[in-house]
Amino acid sequence: METISEHACYGGKVGFYRHESRVNSCRMQFSVFTPSQAKKAPVPVITYLAGLTCTEETFMVKGGAQRVADELGLMLVAVDTSPRGESVPDDAQQAYDMGLGAGFYLNATQAPWNHHYHMYDYVTRELPALLFNEFRGDPTRQGIFGHSMGGHGALTIGLRNPQVYRSISAFAPICSPMNCPWGHKALAYYLGEDQDAWRDYDATEIVKNLHEVPKHALLVDQGMADQFLATELNPDLFEAACEARGVKLELRRHDGFDHGYYFISTFMEDHLRHHARILSA
Amino acid sequence: METISEHACYGGKVGFYRHESRVNSCRMQFSVFTPSQAKKAPVPVITYLAGLTCTEETFMVKGGAQRVADELGLMLVAVDTSPRGESVPDDAQQAYDMGLGAGFYLNATQAPWNHHYHMYDYVTRELPALLFNEFRGDPTRQGIFGHSMGGHGALTIGLRNPQVYRSISAFAPICSPMNCPWGHKALAYYLGEDQDAWRDYDATEIVKNLHEVPKHALLVDQGMADQFLATELNPDLFEAACEARGVKLELRRHDGFDHGYYFISTFMEDHLRHHARILSA
Repeated sequence: METISEHACYGGKVGFYRHESRVNSCRMQFSVFTPSQAKKAPVPVITYLAGLTCTEETFMVKGGAQRVADELGLMLVAVDTSPRGESVPDDAQQAYDMGLGAGFYLNATQAPWNHHYHMYDYVTRELPALLFNEFRGDPTRQGIFGHSMGGHGALTIGLRNPQVYRSISAFAPICSPMNCPWGHKALAYYLGEDQDAWRDYDATEIVKNLHEVPKHALLVDQGMADQFLATELNPDLFEAACEARGVKLELRRHDGFDHGYYFISTFMEDHLRHHARILSA
Repeated sequence: METISEHACYGGKVGFYRHESRVNSCRMQFSVFTPSQAKKAPVPVITYLAGLTCTEETFMVKGGAQRVADELGLMLVAVDTSPRGESVPDDAQQAYDMGLGAGFYLNATQAPWNHHYHMYDYVTRELPALLFNEFRGDPTRQGIFGHSMGGHGALTIGLRNPQVYRSISAFAPICSPMNCPWGHKALAYYLGEDQDAWRDYDATEIVKNLHEVPKHALLVDQGMADQFLATELNPDLFEAACEARGVKLELRRHDGFDHGYYFISTFMEDHLRHHARILSA
């Protein structure tokens, strides 16, 4: 692992790092906010998954999370949104919603994507192995959250790995990729036309077929002036599935807020306190 | 004035606006955070001037100021760093420290800059006239702050207009452009070789020749791991001039912090409280 840069921030530091990813067959970058408390003992780790077109830098620059994370003693890890590099295939039209910047946190099975696009394995296996080797995070206290495509990632990864991620939250997540244009396009390219293979990456379908109901409530914030709400996000489907399956969900609908980071940063503190409360219990 | 976009943020909103600037002979963009309190009555206005290469968006995205501004009821205005547009001349080598993105908050007197580069008049006269017409800011309660080149702008504009800007602060300001490479280059291009004309745009020189000492202390934060501290910033010269002239200065030196927005956002709350304290007195 190579350090790209480190920056003092509140009592801790924001760092950017690079390493060879085996599962994605390329170099990957990620960022970590290390709070001051990590000098004394291992701290809880919350992984943030960003949305379409973002990188590992977006959350650290725009999220406004460091103040509260330093207060609560949370390590924050932000992941890139896809594999990158010259050898990594992109969408033929370089569309923003497929290929580079649009990895959808899944393991692709279809050519040409299946050689590089293994973001599910990257987030759940490869990056944590590196992280807990290099940083003072506590692997028994992990949470996951994200925005939009990354909210989809956080819900699907969190729900499928309850023994690892004890706390889950999302900002304006894509709640049912099988039922929206962004998801339909990406899942068809990455996973092929057989929609049975899509269910593992659809939070609403996962809830319907859940073996283990999460112990703690999920927190989801949704702006009601979000320009993607009507076509892409489907919080109502997710809410109904959670209700039917007995999954505790705190879904908050906020009048006037849109899809961007002014919305996210407004509610960031609530999310960090949600994770800290669960992980310190 | 045209609204480009508006975004709910905390209890208020972040907006981006465009208008025809007469003094800069081009279209200019700026951004405003309007706190919830402005619905009831005019609120204090703090103008933020950004550094080299930045735009009117930088502060709103990276500064992390909205939470506290909404709490304190402060309107925040962020200005672009130069005139823009096809007709506006740029540095021949498109250097980052001259021309576009590098207006240095002065009125250029030399060709080809003198037709467009009037950022001093823009910040002190044209923008406020528009602002107090369109937004519920209180013109009797104004403060100014900024970063690096914008810290230079805040100090020089604030010190030269004490009747307008009652509170002044800066992050890592260029304290004496006459004594650093960035300033030397810009002042020579914009103002010509006669260094007498440079003194109006050098905070340290302004302090030395000040008629009216500011009533309230200036707040300046400086990171001691700042990559530009040794060559460009000269806080020691400014501190000595303030000391000699009896200007109250709270200059805080912070070990480990660099020149970027992770530093700025860490101390943003202190700056907003500094302005609010003075403007509510």
